[in-house]
Amino acid sequence: MKIINIGLLGCGTVGTGVAQILINKAELLQNRLGCRLNLKYIADLDTTRDRGLQFKKGVLIKDAFKVVADPEIDIIVELIGGTTLARDLLMQAINNSKQVVTANKALLATQGREIFKLAAQNNIDLGFEASIGGCMPIIKTIREALVGNHITAMTGILNGTCNFILSQITKDGSAFDQTLKTAQEKGFAEADPSLDIEGHDTAHKLALLNALAYDMDINLDVIFVEGICGITPMDIEFARSFGYRIKLLAISKIHSKAVDARVHPTMIPAENLLSAVDGSLNAVMISGDAVSETMLYGHGAGMLPTASAVVSDIIDAARNLMSGHPTRQPLPMGIRADTCCPYPVLPIAEISTCYYFRFAAVDRPGVLSKIAGVLGEHNISIKSVQQKGRCVKGAVPIVMLTHLAKESDVQKALHQITGIDIVTQHPTLIRIEDALD
Amino acid sequence: MKIINIGLLGCGTVGTGVAQILINKAELLQNRLGCRLNLKYIADLDTTRDRGLQFKKGVLIKDAFKVVADPEIDIIVELIGGTTLARDLLMQAINNSKQVVTANKALLATQGREIFKLAAQNNIDLGFEASIGGCMPIIKTIREALVGNHITAMTGILNGTCNFILSQITKDGSAFDQTLKTAQEKGFAEADPSLDIEGHDTAHKLALLNALAYDMDINLDVIFVEGICGITPMDIEFARSFGYRIKLLAISKIHSKAVDARVHPTMIPAENLLSAVDGSLNAVMISGDAVSETMLYGHGAGMLPTASAVVSDIIDAARNLMSGHPTRQPLPMGIRADTCCPYPVLPIAEISTCYYFRFAAVDRPGVLSKIAGVLGEHNISIKSVQQKGRCVKGAVPIVMLTHLAKESDVQKALHQITGIDIVTQHPTLIRIEDALD
Repeated sequence: MKIINIGLLGCGTVGTGVAQILINKAELLQNRLGCRLNLKYIADLDTTRDRGLQFKKGVLIKDAFKVVADPEIDIIVELIGGTTLARDLLMQAINNSKQVVTANKALLATQGREIFKLAAQNNIDLGFEASIGGCMPIIKTIREALVGNHITAMTGILNGTCNFILSQITKDGSAFDQTLKTAQEKGFAEADPSLDIEGHDTAHKLALLNALAYDMDINLDVIFVEGICGITPMDIEFARSFGYRIKLLAISKIHSKAVDARVHPTMIPAENLLSAVDGSLNAVMISGDAVSETMLYGHGAGMLPTASAVVSDIIDAARNLMSGHPTRQPLPMGIRADTCCPYPVLPIAEISTCYYFRFAAVDRPGVLSKIAGVLGEHNISIKSVQQKGRCVKGAVPIVMLTHLAKESDVQKALHQITGIDIVTQHPTLIRIEDALD
Repeated sequence: MKIINIGLLGCGTVGTGVAQILINKAELLQNRLGCRLNLKYIADLDTTRDRGLQFKKGVLIKDAFKVVADPEIDIIVELIGGTTLARDLLMQAINNSKQVVTANKALLATQGREIFKLAAQNNIDLGFEASIGGCMPIIKTIREALVGNHITAMTGILNGTCNFILSQITKDGSAFDQTLKTAQEKGFAEADPSLDIEGHDTAHKLALLNALAYDMDINLDVIFVEGICGITPMDIEFARSFGYRIKLLAISKIHSKAVDARVHPTMIPAENLLSAVDGSLNAVMISGDAVSETMLYGHGAGMLPTASAVVSDIIDAARNLMSGHPTRQPLPMGIRADTCCPYPVLPIAEISTCYYFRFAAVDRPGVLSKIAGVLGEHNISIKSVQQKGRCVKGAVPIVMLTHLAKESDVQKALHQITGIDIVTQHPTLIRIEDALD
């Protein structure tokens, strides 16, 4: 029976999960695949920590470069993370004609262009299913299941940390900082949570999804990003009173011959399926011209859910090796550069959506008309207003929902409103998506 | 550039959708696939109806057997339906070494054993993604994305007709018959809806899912099936008052070294994600030992969503032909018979679940204690009771929810209760799933 040798780089949480599946389910995988997967090397700086697994002697080593150089290794699995060492190892592995699998969204979103090109030149499979949405087969679904579709929109909850925090505030009304602390204690947030809560992790994933779905080049810089740090329990409560929930969404859609791609906290109708995606769970709604809409839901992080996606990529690469035909599934067309998305990405100033504003103003007659006046001057039409008597730091909150308005108009209006003497702080803005598709 | 010739058998709704995608998106598919798909023949008895498409001369013919016999045809797509002619054509196509794609769940659920075996013997790809859940890539997800998992449970809303009817009754409270009529008028139900509303269509799909997920043989007969005809607006309203929704579910789980597989109307918590799947939409929650749980959601029927799944299978078969390696993804292990599920399927009498009962009884003191007494004698413990004053046909409804009870005990108890003189009709029973996983 043919043996396929695997080299695993990085044996932290996800790496341990991958090793666990490859070792404990060796027979199952062999039955399903028709050949044997041999975990020949695991490279990690820490070779002593107990990972609850029995490795054969010599499997766990420190030198990752030895692994990518070993001529016997067929598939390299990169789970080191980061964008320097991981990059060098991946590039060397590809140059050494190894098939590669990675979960490294930060690396692919920032340097994917170069890495995918090298893989294509070398006729190498580069599996990256685990880099977006953990166990959810988003990449497989877009590239294979929806191959007969023009993708027209994607809307995703793609960061478990943010979704846990927002769900928790929605549930118990505690403040952002406190909830972040809880998330850290429960292992749902990193010690340095900025990549997650500032939205950048979600943007990395959206950059890759855009490339896959619209045959675009991978371009992180064109995606507008706003995190969840400014979301207060008060906004979540107001949202609820209007029939909305607040989620950090990755939104991208083809609209008027342009791509509208952005990451920000978003108010969505409570009855939308995405509103029911709570805790650290992830989901992505994908619209295609044939399927209308379809959704995937599952754990976007965690040892075994992520490892499950990595193993799926390993098996796909192994099947291709067995058939002697790597790159059976060619890399995204934008990357291959032989076709490419004809549409530009809209700057955020040019998007039109509905808005939620919360103003803090001195409780004095005429304040509402002043604010409404400025909005009107900027073509922003108000759909509904709530002025509640709750006095916060000497000011009352005035909440407004708008009809469709242009972001550049909104920014100008809010700037002007901030300058009004009886407005006591910079207004809060949350974008609304009423008709997700 | 290589050309792959396709023969389409049956050009009704889904067939027309497939032809539409293959013709209108020929260039897109060629870019994604790297070879040209040529729709050489479409066989249908009706060669005159306007399908909104321009076929080249000689493409649309009446004789399906000519198509499966043509040596130039590489892939046969069977969309005729039924279990006789379709079967003969599929078998001939396989014997003639064509790759085959079908959406025919009834055929595969009843005669799949023989058909899959023949395909395996002939080294043929048999794609059937469109046979379960329309556009949702359930088969691809189970076989590829979750390849590193032991699947432990599946819970699905797999019939759009039933889900439309139940959603509609939940929404407006109209009676079953009226709602069925609406569904027929809107095209969500067939003229003869029995296969759908009696649950058999869902059972066909579950039989295939079981084979895929648990390496079982395809066995329809072991699945308990109960349809939705007995569901009244009153039961849906009571369900709501207890915090539940009623859905026709396909349920299967590995439980105590046995497979619990059944199709019946089920009360599930309103906050469960499946409760939010409304109208003709489908969804399936799949639990695996690595991924925990993951869900797919989308249109389970309809021209283009189903065609999208068929095209995905065509492309997979075409990729395999291009690499000279059909059956890259081997057929389900239970079918190949080289491994197989070690667990028996539980007869319905042996399952344990929670129950909703609605009794109709003369409004007289002591009736509740009589009913409760019989239940107690059969080890059925009551969790909650509602006796509402609404008198229906001279009787009041008494509603009870139970703790976990054994189905055989429940059937005996209900039989005995039906015999009580003040109980005016056979009790209504709806099974409850509180902890879907």
